[in-house]
Amino acid sequence: MAAPRRRTSAELQVNGGLMPPSAHVIASPRGSGSGGAPCREEHAVTANGGGPALRGAKPRGGGSVCSATKTSDRRRPAGRMPLWRVFIFASVALNVAALPLLLHQYIVSHPHHPGVISPDQQHHACAPPPGTSGAAARAPSTGKPSVTSDSVINLDHGDPTMFEAFWRETGDAAELVIPGWQTMSYFSDVGNVCWFMEPLFDQQVRRLHRTVGNAAVDGYHVLVGTGSTQLFMAALYALSPADAAEPTSVVSTAPYYSSYPAVTDFLRSGLFRWAGDANSFVGDAYIELVCSPNNPDGAIRDAVLSSGAGKAVHDLAYYWPQYTPITRRADHDIMLFTVSKSTGHAGTRIGWALVKDREVARRMTKFVELNTIGVSKDSQLRAAKVLSAVSDGYVDGDASRHRLFDFGRRKMVERWRMLREAAAASGIFSLPAETSGRCNFANETAANNPAFAWLRCDREDVEDCAGFLRGHKILTRSGNQFGADPRYVRVSMLDRDDAYDIFIRRLASLK
Amino acid sequence: MAAPRRRTSAELQVNGGLMPPSAHVIASPRGSGSGGAPCREEHAVTANGGGPALRGAKPRGGGSVCSATKTSDRRRPAGRMPLWRVFIFASVALNVAALPLLLHQYIVSHPHHPGVISPDQQHHACAPPPGTSGAAARAPSTGKPSVTSDSVINLDHGDPTMFEAFWRETGDAAELVIPGWQTMSYFSDVGNVCWFMEPLFDQQVRRLHRTVGNAAVDGYHVLVGTGSTQLFMAALYALSPADAAEPTSVVSTAPYYSSYPAVTDFLRSGLFRWAGDANSFVGDAYIELVCSPNNPDGAIRDAVLSSGAGKAVHDLAYYWPQYTPITRRADHDIMLFTVSKSTGHAGTRIGWALVKDREVARRMTKFVELNTIGVSKDSQLRAAKVLSAVSDGYVDGDASRHRLFDFGRRKMVERWRMLREAAAASGIFSLPAETSGRCNFANETAANNPAFAWLRCDREDVEDCAGFLRGHKILTRSGNQFGADPRYVRVSMLDRDDAYDIFIRRLASLK
Repeated sequence: MAAPRRRTSAELQVNGGLMPPSAHVIASPRGSGSGGAPCREEHAVTANGGGPALRGAKPRGGGSVCSATKTSDRRRPAGRMPLWRVFIFASVALNVAALPLLLHQYIVSHPHHPGVISPDQQHHACAPPPGTSGAAARAPSTGKPSVTSDSVINLDHGDPTMFEAFWRETGDAAELVIPGWQTMSYFSDVGNVCWFMEPLFDQQVRRLHRTVGNAAVDGYHVLVGTGSTQLFMAALYALSPADAAEPTSVVSTAPYYSSYPAVTDFLRSGLFRWAGDANSFVGDAYIELVCSPNNPDGAIRDAVLSSGAGKAVHDLAYYWPQYTPITRRADHDIMLFTVSKSTGHAGTRIGWALVKDREVARRMTKFVELNTIGVSKDSQLRAAKVLSAVSDGYVDGDASRHRLFDFGRRKMVERWRMLREAAAASGIFSLPAETSGRCNFANETAANNPAFAWLRCDREDVEDCAGFLRGHKILTRSGNQFGADPRYVRVSMLDRDDAYDIFIRRLASLK
Repeated sequence: MAAPRRRTSAELQVNGGLMPPSAHVIASPRGSGSGGAPCREEHAVTANGGGPALRGAKPRGGGSVCSATKTSDRRRPAGRMPLWRVFIFASVALNVAALPLLLHQYIVSHPHHPGVISPDQQHHACAPPPGTSGAAARAPSTGKPSVTSDSVINLDHGDPTMFEAFWRETGDAAELVIPGWQTMSYFSDVGNVCWFMEPLFDQQVRRLHRTVGNAAVDGYHVLVGTGSTQLFMAALYALSPADAAEPTSVVSTAPYYSSYPAVTDFLRSGLFRWAGDANSFVGDAYIELVCSPNNPDGAIRDAVLSSGAGKAVHDLAYYWPQYTPITRRADHDIMLFTVSKSTGHAGTRIGWALVKDREVARRMTKFVELNTIGVSKDSQLRAAKVLSAVSDGYVDGDASRHRLFDFGRRKMVERWRMLREAAAASGIFSLPAETSGRCNFANETAANNPAFAWLRCDREDVEDCAGFLRGHKILTRSGNQFGADPRYVRVSMLDRDDAYDIFIRRLASLK
């Protein structure tokens, strides 16, 4: 059994300077779980409450307290201060003075790690030894920690916690109870192509699409996946001929979702391979990913390629009323959706695909079978409950019900208004022009209010907007991860109010 | 929008003959969901309750009734029977006579489809058009349908529904309530290597291993996956050097788990490639999969290869007291476990890995991030609740608690006794010899009672045991999928009592 590894003093210092070098002398291994290592304890408190970028965030109340801070709280005995206390006091003072320097150095030396979602850089520097997650867990997690006006604001990922407020209001209409003996089998519906899909989920998906009118469902197979990310891979698998001499090219028009290249290529599959911007693609066989509204820039898109041997996969994650007018009932061959962006339940890990062709549906199902032997039924049933609550809100005649898309659209309109005002106040940023259309769902003209802001920095001396913003403690995703210029960044519009408000204030002040 | 496809009469006949050809004349498309297609309705009833192999199983009560059967129930008017009724009666009689012939033909013409888990062959022949799953879903699924003495008994997959009885007894100790607003974020614990893992789950995993003593946890990272299948792929990804000229060879000693080759190779990754039986492998770099107790034959195993550049992944899915004596606290570099086989909650899709090396843990986490952006928190919290209930059962001093491993071991002992008696009564089958050891958990000598029976047919004229048993309506997985002789089959020992009892009776009668 490997002994837990002690951190070096260098690592302790890189930890945002919260841990004065003297603290590590009194640290003790936590292998037995019996406590006593102050640096680890405080870190443990922040592990459940620490910021994703660095430890500037104050630890949550409760839990253990780092003994270094306690030192200065001890009462001073009458008379002359002992020499050792002087040394400690001076040591602490020196470290406090060094804090801002170390903070700055840490931020600029850890560029955002490219990838789908990557908090790993942030916690790499000072993570507890395994098995020492500190204070015993008492409750389900609550996502990213709360922020204060000094916090690093992380809007790199589309973490949809903005929707929490709506679901708290909804009370127990969306609550799920799972008895201990329920859905233990691998099988959900042996007569269905997608044999691991819960019929209740299938039912609620179809119902929701009929309610919103954003996609056709009659004549379509519904497939479930562990997020639409898994179904994206499943579609690549299903559409790539097994007997092709070369991997099938996978393309999308820039700026494209940063996950597409990463997820396509991370296993170096012989079946499919990322081939970049669809606008510059030459060839007959391809899989074109069409994301509309687009991630990152919110543009409404169609496929740009057309060839007999080419296939399109339509990622409609954002084709919901809170983000965009519902202008038509989409009826593409393969359409992907996710609860992460429709209802905000990213942690549930549920996506679905509407697929016309039975053989394609069968092969996509086979992918999910081989990858994860199906999809959690607990998650499917939760998603079904949530989708049902959404549809219930639009049953005719009851205006008092909780209406998700009304809530969402109001929030997104407000947030985009705030963002455009802040960009104007700042003067160094620009945003995509506002577009609008006739929304058949709401029966009104509605603007596009994308889930991400495709923000460009117009200051001549700023070539790397993500780096510039990082220096102001705002984490975003650089345009270069989307096949675009690094003057652009993608900023999440879906975080909680506290984080968003701080972001807006800070952005407006940048010159 | 594609129109729903009507089934041909040939397809209707292949459907175990439940649907007389005349029925399809009155069938109507179900696109609008308004009902009226008797064949689809009855099929829909069986879709939730239909057998995996064919439609021999009777439809469950409730739901709609096929109008063909209703015809004969209509009261006969006084006097002579109308001619059209005579024709219908004759038609039905002919089809009833043809049932056994069609049944037999269907069974022998649909060989078991190789793969991880493959009900697709069974439902391919007569699946409803998409969107016509018939009777509206009313409740969560209940796995494979009930069986009768005439049913095809499907023991091909290790569907662990044997454990349902235990969890029903446990009542609400393992019940989970999920509020609508809970765990919506992607993030669970930003300070942890495995940032999407719920701390409650981590905690219960460690607690359970300390309780059972089957694996060391101190100094290990716990990682969560969507089943251990996903973590198996994650381990291959983590252990394959990104800069290797050739894919890393993946090996395991035969007979090996049929999933290993399938999951390793289905994407034709350039990083890793299945290279067969470890016993015949020559080379310095490899990843050896060590499954102990082994799937399919229950053997207790160690790694057979040793080389500086080689790595081992230990799949300990069955290393629990119900299957095998706990003889030591395993402490390998990478150990995989799953709730599917420990508690029986296969539908929850949760597995975990104990990993010593931080960099390996980080790379495995990255795999899960790219594959599915983490793991459902609902599933993790359910697994945590269930694991907690298991550990609670072994808190000192309370003998009245529900004890999973006691239940499991009793069941497995009984089932293996029944199996050995049945094999003896039959005379044409053999099984692995019984082995036993000192169980440190139960403080007694205990036999090995594997989750699968590695059954061999000794009749000289039977070279394909799976085919032979299929002819007797018993579905198993052929030895050739495990790199072994097709005289062997793998039979699940974990199904419900009704299915298992029918299997035993039938097996004993085979000569």
